[in-house]
Amino acid sequence: MLNIPDSPHPRIVIIGAGFAGFNLAKKLRKKDFQVVLIDKFNYHQFQPLFYQVAMAGLEPTSIIFPLRKAFQGSPNVHIRIAKVTKIKDEEKRIDTTLGEIYYDQLIIATGATTNYFGNEDFKKFTSPLKSLSEALALRNEILSDFEQALMTPEYEERQGFIDIVIVGGGPTGVELAGSLAEMRKYILPKDYPELDEKEVDIYLFQGGSRLLMGMSDHAGKKALSFLRKLGVKVELNKRVTGFDGTFVTTKDGQKIRAHKVIWAAGIKGNCLDGLSNCEIARGNRYLVDEQHKLKDFKDIFALGDIAYMKTEKYPNGHPQVAQVAIQQSNNLAKNLIKNKSNAFVYKDLGSMATIGRNKAVCDLPRMKFSGFFAWLLWLFVHLMSLIGFKNKIFVMLNWMWNYMTYDQSLRVIINTKEKPNSTRIQKT
Amino acid sequence: MLNIPDSPHPRIVIIGAGFAGFNLAKKLRKKDFQVVLIDKFNYHQFQPLFYQVAMAGLEPTSIIFPLRKAFQGSPNVHIRIAKVTKIKDEEKRIDTTLGEIYYDQLIIATGATTNYFGNEDFKKFTSPLKSLSEALALRNEILSDFEQALMTPEYEERQGFIDIVIVGGGPTGVELAGSLAEMRKYILPKDYPELDEKEVDIYLFQGGSRLLMGMSDHAGKKALSFLRKLGVKVELNKRVTGFDGTFVTTKDGQKIRAHKVIWAAGIKGNCLDGLSNCEIARGNRYLVDEQHKLKDFKDIFALGDIAYMKTEKYPNGHPQVAQVAIQQSNNLAKNLIKNKSNAFVYKDLGSMATIGRNKAVCDLPRMKFSGFFAWLLWLFVHLMSLIGFKNKIFVMLNWMWNYMTYDQSLRVIINTKEKPNSTRIQKT
Repeated sequence: MLNIPDSPHPRIVIIGAGFAGFNLAKKLRKKDFQVVLIDKFNYHQFQPLFYQVAMAGLEPTSIIFPLRKAFQGSPNVHIRIAKVTKIKDEEKRIDTTLGEIYYDQLIIATGATTNYFGNEDFKKFTSPLKSLSEALALRNEILSDFEQALMTPEYEERQGFIDIVIVGGGPTGVELAGSLAEMRKYILPKDYPELDEKEVDIYLFQGGSRLLMGMSDHAGKKALSFLRKLGVKVELNKRVTGFDGTFVTTKDGQKIRAHKVIWAAGIKGNCLDGLSNCEIARGNRYLVDEQHKLKDFKDIFALGDIAYMKTEKYPNGHPQVAQVAIQQSNNLAKNLIKNKSNAFVYKDLGSMATIGRNKAVCDLPRMKFSGFFAWLLWLFVHLMSLIGFKNKIFVMLNWMWNYMTYDQSLRVIINTKEKPNSTRIQKT
Repeated sequence: MLNIPDSPHPRIVIIGAGFAGFNLAKKLRKKDFQVVLIDKFNYHQFQPLFYQVAMAGLEPTSIIFPLRKAFQGSPNVHIRIAKVTKIKDEEKRIDTTLGEIYYDQLIIATGATTNYFGNEDFKKFTSPLKSLSEALALRNEILSDFEQALMTPEYEERQGFIDIVIVGGGPTGVELAGSLAEMRKYILPKDYPELDEKEVDIYLFQGGSRLLMGMSDHAGKKALSFLRKLGVKVELNKRVTGFDGTFVTTKDGQKIRAHKVIWAAGIKGNCLDGLSNCEIARGNRYLVDEQHKLKDFKDIFALGDIAYMKTEKYPNGHPQVAQVAIQQSNNLAKNLIKNKSNAFVYKDLGSMATIGRNKAVCDLPRMKFSGFFAWLLWLFVHLMSLIGFKNKIFVMLNWMWNYMTYDQSLRVIINTKEKPNSTRIQKT
């Protein structure tokens, strides 16, 4: 039992506090609904900057925002930190790790997770970058491995600790590769004078024929040239076929010793248990109509990365990016508040990726450009999209600091261990 | 094998990068020694502010400093992240989790850890606050328990989640109690409108007859009155006799339901394995002479919390505080560099503790005072003692922000999990 008080208003349960769920709950503050926002974590995460946390450039807390703080002074919004285990749509009920709850309308905004395409080895041994914990774990691994490399006089073995393979040439892969290359250039020689930074190889393997498939051809080409100038070994049309924790193998027979393989090659929707009669579309996503409603359901909606909506302009669904999630939640909020059923129309504001200091690529609806101004625009857009004035200030100061000193000062390996005998663990 | 290059200079191995070890290594930069600094963590920790990390007031990274960054440009200092497992003084060798190393002179600066006085239940169930990981774990527990309390309609059971018992009325206990009381007052009502903050009890149990035994009588009394005004249930001459994870029992028969018991009742030195012939003094500390040398050893020194030095002015040893550690390392550095054997003389600069907004107590050598100016001085001294210009700036901005908004924005529960099958874990 989720212990939500009774209310005269209809109850809207939102699963997931990502861009879609968080924004929808914000729009429904102080409206005539009882909103229950459920998430596994007690904070909203700003995914586009995970890679900077992994690279020790930003603090985790500067890119996330506590849900309770975001909804201070909104008594109609109830937050519950729990995992949803099952949807029982016939009873209009969901089960969570904290108990069950009944809904009048259900919004599924559970986002997407890493897709290993069924390969158990990839799942077991590669490092994903789809959550803050994963970003921190990757940071710890990179730093621990440099320490290990110092203790490893044998060249081949040392390569395993210092080389990094990134699989997938989308924005995550490209931004991470650029950032790693800059760490190698500016930081390694200062922090690890006992290591030879020229020994560190950064591989970026892309299965497709160009980088940044979701962006323009110009952006893909520019990103490729920026990365190669930074010394990243980018290879296109290259398929990784195996990884056993020590060696990466590719389809064309290459074998690379690297303990860290970052898997940024695909995502799939976080579908929930239950809902057996719904239609699952490409990418493990719920098929929705133009009012965000699940096919054949009256009171269940899906938003953002988990939703698959075909429209005339987007016959294969919308891109799985923050802007789509935000605009969809805006449309649904309007429909709910005004009791309308306006169809969703996506307004593409453009897309961008940064490759490193002073380097980014930018596709705007009427203009494609790259370089310093693209980079400035990238900084500005990301800063403005962060939740919270303090986060904006602290991220900006961090970026200024890093830019001026060619250094980030967050290269620490921190593990948070709960007490093994904590009563809390037994309870939850 | 720790893989340290050969050097024409004598090798000084320092175990521990706390105030003593870190400061000594700093003083020996670019001198005619080869310095090997060994620590379990890759950062120096500023212990006096751990409680603010636990209370979600500061980021962990603003009060720690990466060792490699601190020693950039000091090629004679070699950093190794390892745990020392044994000292073999007859071979002038120490064993670590990464391999063995030989020393010419050995400095033990391993500090102190929580003392449970042999009680296994206290060790198992209470929360210590002697490392950054423990501070983060405590932060996570406090926040998770508030979430659990929301789900707990039964009053008695709910009390277990929201009440907090602090054992020990030294600076850690006092500062934590004050900080918890302010969180209850300013933050709980906003973040958890569904909870009644008046239900939250904060207990501070002190075995002795007054608070802050290491400070003046005036400071102890003032701290008591400040805490009581904030609504903390302070009890003096109160001994905690048991805790089973759910109920705390005291010698006078009180029984309190509280899952969180913070153990700040004592510390003991982190003595190392080996060194069988050395003399261990009160508090599990190495007995040293006035030149910091271990009794009966020629080339082994101990500094800071782990050292027990009797002098005319301090017949029972020095207080276990940062200033002693820093001054001792300064003296030893001078002796080593100039090949002298000056006796250590401690210059007491005073001590202080803060209780909350605008409230602190301060014992200076010629003056004891409390209140707003003591608080300002506390802020200033702690800010200046932090390592790193950026840390100073970021902590100051955080404090200003918290002061103005009556709020901290870091109330997030983050766990960093390593991949269970990480090759790294198998390696180390």
